[in-house]
Amino acid sequence: MIAAREQLKIIKKGVLDMLREEELLEKLEESVKTERPLIIKLGLDPSAPDIHLGHTVVLRKIKQMQDLGHKAVIIIGDFTGRIGDPTGKSKTRKPLSEEQVKANAATYMEQIFKVLDRNKTEVRFNSEWLSKLNFEEIITLASNTTVARLLERDDFQNRYRKQEAIGLHEFFYPLMQGYDSVEIHADIELGGTDQTFNVLMGRTLQKAYGQPQQIAMFMPILEGLDGVEKMSKSLGNYIGINESPEVMFKKVMEIPDQLIIRYFDLVTDEHPDTIQAYKEEMEQGKNPRDIKLILARTITKLYHGEDGAISGEEYFMTVFRDGEIPDDILTVKLNTEQESLLDIASMLVEQRLVPSTSEFRRLVKQGGVKLNKEKVLDIDCIFVEQENILQIGKKKFIKFLR
Amino acid sequence: MIAAREQLKIIKKGVLDMLREEELLEKLEESVKTERPLIIKLGLDPSAPDIHLGHTVVLRKIKQMQDLGHKAVIIIGDFTGRIGDPTGKSKTRKPLSEEQVKANAATYMEQIFKVLDRNKTEVRFNSEWLSKLNFEEIITLASNTTVARLLERDDFQNRYRKQEAIGLHEFFYPLMQGYDSVEIHADIELGGTDQTFNVLMGRTLQKAYGQPQQIAMFMPILEGLDGVEKMSKSLGNYIGINESPEVMFKKVMEIPDQLIIRYFDLVTDEHPDTIQAYKEEMEQGKNPRDIKLILARTITKLYHGEDGAISGEEYFMTVFRDGEIPDDILTVKLNTEQESLLDIASMLVEQRLVPSTSEFRRLVKQGGVKLNKEKVLDIDCIFVEQENILQIGKKKFIKFLR
Repeated sequence: MIAAREQLKIIKKGVLDMLREEELLEKLEESVKTERPLIIKLGLDPSAPDIHLGHTVVLRKIKQMQDLGHKAVIIIGDFTGRIGDPTGKSKTRKPLSEEQVKANAATYMEQIFKVLDRNKTEVRFNSEWLSKLNFEEIITLASNTTVARLLERDDFQNRYRKQEAIGLHEFFYPLMQGYDSVEIHADIELGGTDQTFNVLMGRTLQKAYGQPQQIAMFMPILEGLDGVEKMSKSLGNYIGINESPEVMFKKVMEIPDQLIIRYFDLVTDEHPDTIQAYKEEMEQGKNPRDIKLILARTITKLYHGEDGAISGEEYFMTVFRDGEIPDDILTVKLNTEQESLLDIASMLVEQRLVPSTSEFRRLVKQGGVKLNKEKVLDIDCIFVEQENILQIGKKKFIKFLR
Repeated sequence: MIAAREQLKIIKKGVLDMLREEELLEKLEESVKTERPLIIKLGLDPSAPDIHLGHTVVLRKIKQMQDLGHKAVIIIGDFTGRIGDPTGKSKTRKPLSEEQVKANAATYMEQIFKVLDRNKTEVRFNSEWLSKLNFEEIITLASNTTVARLLERDDFQNRYRKQEAIGLHEFFYPLMQGYDSVEIHADIELGGTDQTFNVLMGRTLQKAYGQPQQIAMFMPILEGLDGVEKMSKSLGNYIGINESPEVMFKKVMEIPDQLIIRYFDLVTDEHPDTIQAYKEEMEQGKNPRDIKLILARTITKLYHGEDGAISGEEYFMTVFRDGEIPDDILTVKLNTEQESLLDIASMLVEQRLVPSTSEFRRLVKQGGVKLNKEKVLDIDCIFVEQENILQIGKKKFIKFLR
């Protein structure tokens, strides 16, 4: 193991916030002395098993620590997943069957090991300990926090102020997550800044249960393709690490130019000096698209190797830069009621080709939609051919058969 | 069984509030039709097993319903008793051992059956079901109420406003009490008005678990000897139903005159017409003390029979009215360090002869304390005799031996 101070320097890079650095140094020193790897906790929600680049910000940081000799413990929140939200009100807390949880966990692992070191990773399901707690133990668990503190969490606070119902059971989700840290004796918990409250709960509970407190380490949140919102599957602005080289390459090319450097920083292993050089080139007038091509190659290569990066790029160049219509585009058979663009608008929304029907209407009016290579300006435009190619913006194609 | 409407009339008497009368009538009609007795729930806290007249307000109402053919289910809250308050902050929630809980429950029962009909009473311990709930079931239980609703409970609201900590576990006590109603399929829950929130929680949870809702029936709260505060053991203003005839008689004689009629109403079985007559006599100038003597006889007789009432009265007349020192007063052997009144002040507080040391100091200064029939005006007054009779106020005596 390399010296604690040197490890600290590497670990700190890119970390947005940490509680607390001096404690981490102590833990690292102890680890070097006793040759005991630190335990790095990462909790995952089994209801959304697709890992996207947003997740890899945290995963890459964990990988760095694995390379320093430490051990990752991935906790699949299957207990919460199986319970769901008994009120049925929360979409993100729909109960999952044991099979679903297992299948999702397997999908997770397959993706995660594209970033993490399999030999230094342990996977645990939190139902293992949570399902065994009895009422008395739960009362003791609950006694370690107060109603006021829970109401300080941003989302609870907002809902309480707006007089929106907060089910009492919801107060238990952060406690469960915190208790996971107690159970695995976590030394470090990684999270996005949106996980601050829950990660700190781990510290509180570890202290209450007489354990050394974990280091809370927060990574920046990656913006999605829209450049504004957090990358998330539900917003559709994500790049999944399981996506094909072609899709991955194309999606990276869609990010706004101002995110190019941030993506280099957060989701690649590129050296900081290299990234700085790209930045300066753009400032000196280089076309950002050229740097973005490098980014797309770099990211695609991480998940699909050299060959993947090449085929992704070739596809992109053929289809999207040269204005050609790709061969293997999505083909849809129209039914008899579907005669006009208006009739298929909601389907386009479902396919995520447009964000909303009204946005589609606006695009049409602005001339951003072509039917069989002709601009259409009226959403009531009718399909007249047997085979119709609809083009939305520059890069989105779909084929309709009558 | 007598007709439902007639039962309703009897049950309603003296009830302060009921939710809801029409539902009770329906339940009574169903009960008459099917000859199924209604289940009347009463929850008791095993941490304070002394039953006093305050509790009998509710117990007498239950006895009336037993006489109408219904069944009482007494729930000993042993689960909460055994858990206590894990933070150790609440004095009323100190954890009890299983033996303590059992001993307290036995004491309870012995007292309760001085009012209730043993043959129509079932006793259950709520640990029977609460200890078996797992985390998943608890989450489901918790999902039936909201944080906002719990914060509406008076005591929680006050503490939240004053920024006093409310432990999350405290939110579970009303849920546990409510869940007891689900478990025993309660038809009616009795409580003082201070139990409104918890009794209504029973209705909420029964509905959530697909059961008919219990009737919430609230009885007035009996004031204690001070005439102001609720009768309670911790305030020392109570008349325990297990107390000796002498003490009981004497304590009844201590209540303020304005409570005489209320006590007749709430803790005796005296006919309303008789009570009305007493009221009119006092209004016409009769000395309230004479009516209070009737009250003391009536109450003492309820718990100690005719003989008890007579001996209680004789003792009272001898000791307290005639100013004599009773023969069988508490006798205490002083140890060598105890030389002055100041040295024994804390013991007097323990014996409940004075409410506090400072109050004792004040009484001494006002000449309300006699040592061997002489007024003492200095709390440093030293015991000089071998045998010392200390008199506090008119009625409290204690003998000290050197």
